[in-house]
Amino acid sequence: MTKAVDLAARLGLAAPVIQAPMAGAQGHALAAAVCEAGGLGAIPAALLSPAGLRAEIEALRARSTRPFAVNFFCHQPPAPDAARERRWRERLAPYYAEYGLDPAAAPAGAMRAPFSAELAALIEPLRPPVLSFHFGLPAPDLLARVKRWGALVMASATTVEEARWLQQHGADVIIAQGLEAGGHRGHFLDDDLTRQLGLFALLPQIVQAVSLPVVAAGGIGDATTIAAARALGAAGVQIGTAYLKSPEATITPQHRALLGTEAARHTALTNLFSGRPARSIVNRLMRECGPLCADVPAFPLAPAALAPLREAAQAQGRSDFSSLWAGSYAANCRAAPAAELTQAFIAAWQAARTQEMA
Amino acid sequence: MTKAVDLAARLGLAAPVIQAPMAGAQGHALAAAVCEAGGLGAIPAALLSPAGLRAEIEALRARSTRPFAVNFFCHQPPAPDAARERRWRERLAPYYAEYGLDPAAAPAGAMRAPFSAELAALIEPLRPPVLSFHFGLPAPDLLARVKRWGALVMASATTVEEARWLQQHGADVIIAQGLEAGGHRGHFLDDDLTRQLGLFALLPQIVQAVSLPVVAAGGIGDATTIAAARALGAAGVQIGTAYLKSPEATITPQHRALLGTEAARHTALTNLFSGRPARSIVNRLMRECGPLCADVPAFPLAPAALAPLREAAQAQGRSDFSSLWAGSYAANCRAAPAAELTQAFIAAWQAARTQEMA
Repeated sequence: MTKAVDLAARLGLAAPVIQAPMAGAQGHALAAAVCEAGGLGAIPAALLSPAGLRAEIEALRARSTRPFAVNFFCHQPPAPDAARERRWRERLAPYYAEYGLDPAAAPAGAMRAPFSAELAALIEPLRPPVLSFHFGLPAPDLLARVKRWGALVMASATTVEEARWLQQHGADVIIAQGLEAGGHRGHFLDDDLTRQLGLFALLPQIVQAVSLPVVAAGGIGDATTIAAARALGAAGVQIGTAYLKSPEATITPQHRALLGTEAARHTALTNLFSGRPARSIVNRLMRECGPLCADVPAFPLAPAALAPLREAAQAQGRSDFSSLWAGSYAANCRAAPAAELTQAFIAAWQAARTQEMA
Repeated sequence: MTKAVDLAARLGLAAPVIQAPMAGAQGHALAAAVCEAGGLGAIPAALLSPAGLRAEIEALRARSTRPFAVNFFCHQPPAPDAARERRWRERLAPYYAEYGLDPAAAPAGAMRAPFSAELAALIEPLRPPVLSFHFGLPAPDLLARVKRWGALVMASATTVEEARWLQQHGADVIIAQGLEAGGHRGHFLDDDLTRQLGLFALLPQIVQAVSLPVVAAGGIGDATTIAAARALGAAGVQIGTAYLKSPEATITPQHRALLGTEAARHTALTNLFSGRPARSIVNRLMRECGPLCADVPAFPLAPAALAPLREAAQAQGRSDFSSLWAGSYAANCRAAPAAELTQAFIAAWQAARTQEMA
């Protein structure tokens, strides 16, 4: 059922195994290991300053000459909402008291910036071969600019409607992001979470609906799930959570210790950590506030008020207020170098292809 | 990856293609067509009186001598809660007014009965070869009785924990019910819906966790999804929604007309129609009350107050207050006889198996 487009050939990869960009959880070290092993490594830009992004790309370039991706968010910055911000801070006040923190000292503002003309100007000379986008696509003029310099454009769809929209608006590859995926849901046309589907239903319906190649994301991390993604029509796989226990990932020791355990089986979509629904292993804040809470400021304004709590708890070795991004594969994570994992994913893809051709 | 157990041989089927029991949407006609085509047809008992159930099984026996299943619910009847019932009826009052209905005339009580000693006594002489259970298993003495007469016991799991529990408590086959499935979620250990997984994550995790054969359910309805279920480790597939547009299904014309259309792509879990979360195509009541509502009486008490509204609207050709059970496959349904559909599913299973053995 796989679309005839050979993504691996187009990208110069051993197989279309794509490392999911995971802002805050990895940088050039993971990307370089994946690239050198024959997959497509990715630099997540969302939490980096322009200078930080340039440094990350240059560090990756120094370690690998193979193709790579840079990932950006495309959200509309929200209007500030003082009442909602106040409700959120009131909700957090007991935790501030518990930790002896001064609520007045909490920062304000956004920690994640969307793709912009400034960022396009910054990265254009570095010529990333692939740009991937979450939450839609950049404005048409910016997208045209990116495509003029020859970058392949990948973008996430969480519904059939979004996949059609992305195809109409210039994406080259669709990433079908199943409900199993860790981190932020990429929806951008509709925030009704009941419209979002698990990969088993989403992937074949998107493959039917568009002519572009479709990469499967969410819940993939071993030979079984790679073969199933191929059976459902995937032209490639994007894998995130299964890399989180690799030494190259930059997550906290608490987050790392949870992965691969029974406790990691319970993940949920939560808006508490950023303002948008994202999949995290369930922790204290999610249990006590409920994973989805109407008082949370709009994305990406929520983390400011949480930051002092997160830091104070982390200093005591607790991740009660930290996002523990992970997909539904989290209980199966294993600790292995990213190169070894990538080689296994590539071998699994190739074995499944061979079997289909038999 | 498929478990070595050959469910088809054990059940005397052409392939382990199981028709999902769908109370209110089908009876012996669909079951007989599936059985005669080589699959496992099923009679849903939940909405039948004891006499009605006996009549259905006898009608099936008259049309087919092949193996079949009878499906029961295993819920605990709830304590009545007058306050909740009142809130629910208050919420429905504007609709009663719109239709000129008398709220005092609405019936009360439960329309779905759980498996019981009475039902076991009734069906024992009819020796159904397979019994399947939803919402757990019957009490140990009842289960032992069923197994003494030689029935194979299948039961639904929506989490890894439930699959382990079912194996420990005497099930012979686990049905891994992915979040894509239409109708009632089968959860019974925990009502936290965030614990429920899409089939892509649920199925391989259950296959890893238990030694019993695991049947995949949810989102399956064609060769692509059957091959993917096999790739994820399924020992069989249970298919419901894809049968709903067959002439043998007994759904309303409005429900039938929606299946196979873009409108059927939007399904959601709702407790409005029964008191327990179940997947339905989104309709007016779900939009206006929200699909999950705390004022709904506990399962199975909710439908009583809705019944007059449902009937009044249906009389005008509207399904605004009717459950439109359907899984995430609903937009792909096609109108074809159940025998033809079953033959296609069997052929798809066999083709996938042949390919894996190549």
